[in-house]
Amino acid sequence: MSRPPDVADLVARARRGEHRAVARLISLVETDTADSPGGRAVLREVAAALAPHTGRAHVVGLTGPPGVGKSTSTSALVTALRQRGRRVGVLAVDPSSPFSGGALLGDRVRMGEHATDDGVFIRSMASRGHLGGLAWSTPQALRVLDAAGCDVVLVETVGVGQSEIEVVALADTTVVLLAPGMGDEVQAAKAGILEVADVLAVNKADRDGAARTVRDLEQAVAMGADVAPTGWRRPVVQTVAVRGEGIDELVAALDAHRAWLGRSGDRLRRRRARAVAEIEALTLEQVRRRIGDLRVAGRLADRVAAGELDPYRAADELLGTLGAMGAGGGGV
Amino acid sequence: MSRPPDVADLVARARRGEHRAVARLISLVETDTADSPGGRAVLREVAAALAPHTGRAHVVGLTGPPGVGKSTSTSALVTALRQRGRRVGVLAVDPSSPFSGGALLGDRVRMGEHATDDGVFIRSMASRGHLGGLAWSTPQALRVLDAAGCDVVLVETVGVGQSEIEVVALADTTVVLLAPGMGDEVQAAKAGILEVADVLAVNKADRDGAARTVRDLEQAVAMGADVAPTGWRRPVVQTVAVRGEGIDELVAALDAHRAWLGRSGDRLRRRRARAVAEIEALTLEQVRRRIGDLRVAGRLADRVAAGELDPYRAADELLGTLGAMGAGGGGV
Repeated sequence: MSRPPDVADLVARARRGEHRAVARLISLVETDTADSPGGRAVLREVAAALAPHTGRAHVVGLTGPPGVGKSTSTSALVTALRQRGRRVGVLAVDPSSPFSGGALLGDRVRMGEHATDDGVFIRSMASRGHLGGLAWSTPQALRVLDAAGCDVVLVETVGVGQSEIEVVALADTTVVLLAPGMGDEVQAAKAGILEVADVLAVNKADRDGAARTVRDLEQAVAMGADVAPTGWRRPVVQTVAVRGEGIDELVAALDAHRAWLGRSGDRLRRRRARAVAEIEALTLEQVRRRIGDLRVAGRLADRVAAGELDPYRAADELLGTLGAMGAGGGGV
Repeated sequence: MSRPPDVADLVARARRGEHRAVARLISLVETDTADSPGGRAVLREVAAALAPHTGRAHVVGLTGPPGVGKSTSTSALVTALRQRGRRVGVLAVDPSSPFSGGALLGDRVRMGEHATDDGVFIRSMASRGHLGGLAWSTPQALRVLDAAGCDVVLVETVGVGQSEIEVVALADTTVVLLAPGMGDEVQAAKAGILEVADVLAVNKADRDGAARTVRDLEQAVAMGADVAPTGWRRPVVQTVAVRGEGIDELVAALDAHRAWLGRSGDRLRRRRARAVAEIEALTLEQVRRRIGDLRVAGRLADRVAAGELDPYRAADELLGTLGAMGAGGGGV
């Protein structure tokens, strides 16, 4: 085994913006899973060391259907934010087959133009089978970038099912990207997409049908405002990300939303909800591990498979056993 | 409130094949969620009454990318199985937006030709936000159809991400449907799809490129057999479901796999694994509910959101509180 990392030193160096320290910390939270030797001791140490230095970054999630230009939009946003002198983190969460963990869409161009910029931290993360789509370690990776002094962290995923929700759960501000002519599926999903969007961007706005898509969205937004008035009127921005057009407007919309989050108290509410979800997930994962260690679970399953017991009664028994074990079983 | 249902009577009538009793029982397991008044008392009663009468049906999952012809193939299978005098259940699990619960693809033709056949039980279920894609109540709905004397239960979903895994987790035999010319995505996903397929069907086999798709799959299957020898050689069947072509071969492949499952002991192993997963899920759901009831969870979240505490330590504290509560908190 290699020497244990000096976490305090890494965090100190990351806070000074050292790229290597940031990369190393993210690697640590990515690889130190519950199954590692030491059972997440390093991850826990990193989490504890980071906590006091977090909460400053504006976390922006980008989501939308495949092909809409998320990668290009992210890159254009990085350029615009850098022009304003802001430090930017990018977490690109790659889609994975639910079966094999292999990436479905393969490697994408990962914003090579920003590779030599000291004020940009870019990281791709695999999405490995954590329920819900985003990698288990994504929240901690966000905290690393936050502690490293990023003003904005952009989280980009593919817009397939569950992963969209997870981005929403992580982000202060969620940008939903659409494009003209994406067909009926987008139309049908629109109502759902509006529920999670803080900012809507119609990318490829130089294409046929852009005006119609924008009008449809604005109408839907106006209707949604009646149903769920939040005090934030969701803007619909038009962009041609590949040429950088409309990106200034997109940045302005993000800034406006950030200001609104602070004014309205929604920022704190969202962060609190996020913390609840994360604590709950970590707790449930630990319970799941304990169940896996229990012989009684296997015996109950045998009886359920044989039709001798129904699964609800079996769960009652399992819960009883877990309760009797108490909470002395070590760390999460 | 309406009168509580006479579960014992419903189960007795369902076992005699009464369609109305079967439909009523599935409705009961679908609607009696943990949030209902009575907290799943009816669902639990149904589960307990069904358990002794289950374990006979051959559960066949059908999955594959959208547009491959799952609905048509399911309908053709129903026809072929009915010609052999078998009772057939169909659970069609509809895709839902993860956001709103609304169906993305809209209503499909639900095999109207079988509507008047006493030996066919067809049920559409919405997939409502249960982690993983399939409705929470799907396993119980399967048990209803099993107890109703179905020889075969076909479970059909859209092939989007997580829901595929869930079908695999439910099925004795998993059929993966593909079609010629579905493009690179299918190619890329093939390795993953092979991992879960017991039977492969190339539908629309009258189209250009069918021979190539079949050859590719057979090659991949042959390679997979080296990697993970299970004693079952996965067949690649060609079908044109819309004309009923190749469906006899597909039924023969399903029967062969069923026989192999019995011979090899794999049937019991799979059912046991399914029971473990179901018991675990029910137990975790109950723990999640308890967390939701705990004030301490909110207080911990406040401290995490403020950077005073890291989420891992917060989860430790929560786990301690749960353990101290013991297991006396009522049913699952």
